[in-house]
Amino acid sequence: MGYEVASLAKLIEQFERMPSIGHKTAQRLAFYVLDMSEEQAKGFAKAILDAHEKIHRCAVCCNLSEDELCPICSKTDRDMSVVCVVEDPRDVIAIERTREFNGTYHVLNGVISPLNGIGPEELTIKELIARMGDGQIKEVIMATNPTVEGEATAMYVSRLLKPLGVATTRLAYGVPVGADLEYADEVTLLRALEGRQTI
Amino acid sequence: MGYEVASLAKLIEQFERMPSIGHKTAQRLAFYVLDMSEEQAKGFAKAILDAHEKIHRCAVCCNLSEDELCPICSKTDRDMSVVCVVEDPRDVIAIERTREFNGTYHVLNGVISPLNGIGPEELTIKELIARMGDGQIKEVIMATNPTVEGEATAMYVSRLLKPLGVATTRLAYGVPVGADLEYADEVTLLRALEGRQTI
Repeated sequence: MGYEVASLAKLIEQFERMPSIGHKTAQRLAFYVLDMSEEQAKGFAKAILDAHEKIHRCAVCCNLSEDELCPICSKTDRDMSVVCVVEDPRDVIAIERTREFNGTYHVLNGVISPLNGIGPEELTIKELIARMGDGQIKEVIMATNPTVEGEATAMYVSRLLKPLGVATTRLAYGVPVGADLEYADEVTLLRALEGRQTI
Repeated sequence: MGYEVASLAKLIEQFERMPSIGHKTAQRLAFYVLDMSEEQAKGFAKAILDAHEKIHRCAVCCNLSEDELCPICSKTDRDMSVVCVVEDPRDVIAIERTREFNGTYHVLNGVISPLNGIGPEELTIKELIARMGDGQIKEVIMATNPTVEGEATAMYVSRLLKPLGVATTRLAYGVPVGADLEYADEVTLLRALEGRQTI
């Protein structure tokens, strides 16, 4: 193309690398950044660097945190005897949105996936086992994703926890609320039937 | 929400302000930035600041440029006697994509829009008139958007240019290539009929 402004092209390229951003959107975002005021652009750049510098893993649950303990682990009103094990910090946000769960979390930081070369030692499983040490934890809820890898990881972790005398549970499978039975897949429907409850 | 990491929330907010980015996408982008390496994050922040610092307006055509003259105005093989007037730098990219136009551009930096408080003096119209000074320019192609404002701006500019003895033309209206006549709107079809050409 005859038209090439190097630093604009570079910015577009940066946005283009991001997930779910195509070339047109990257271009729109780059022009949005150009239209920003000097301060706004500096604020944006600072937010990126800040997030990178300040955020690390919570010493207890391995969730994202700016301090040594994440906001949830440092709260005294949370039920420390229940730990919900999730794959990713985003899953913590999702479960917190229910506003009903009052226990704590443990972020595995992935799932066991031999195809991608991720074994149990890549995850924060030893940190989870270490938390069982003082006998304060009574129940571990496995809330990994309902996928083959998530399932396998849940099985693996629960087998490690069993000898420690901790009850391990798994999120219920079934039809999602608001869905149409007609469009539910066979496996989900089968799990919903198997897990039927008296009303 | 119980879960709040300040610098992450700030980064999500920054992305959320951008056009066509909703909360979910903003969250995904912020996590993508967190997953970047130290260098990548610095590179991204630098690209934002660089674009802001280095890019300004070309002294001739008011297009975006890092140097005094934009890549198009500084090229000697472009036809300096034809100027294509567009609203926005993005329109230059669009027309350059045709690979057929070999003239130069003039970026108005908007359109006359009394509703939004944008008058002719907010645009780069005086810079365009100044370019007519040396009599080198023979034709001005008005390529503002085919909207009410774009149309009015094209009319306004062409009326200013007429006394200067410069031929002004307007992009042809008609049915877009590959479209279905059935779905073309009446106004476009009418314009296509009016502008019909012998084959």
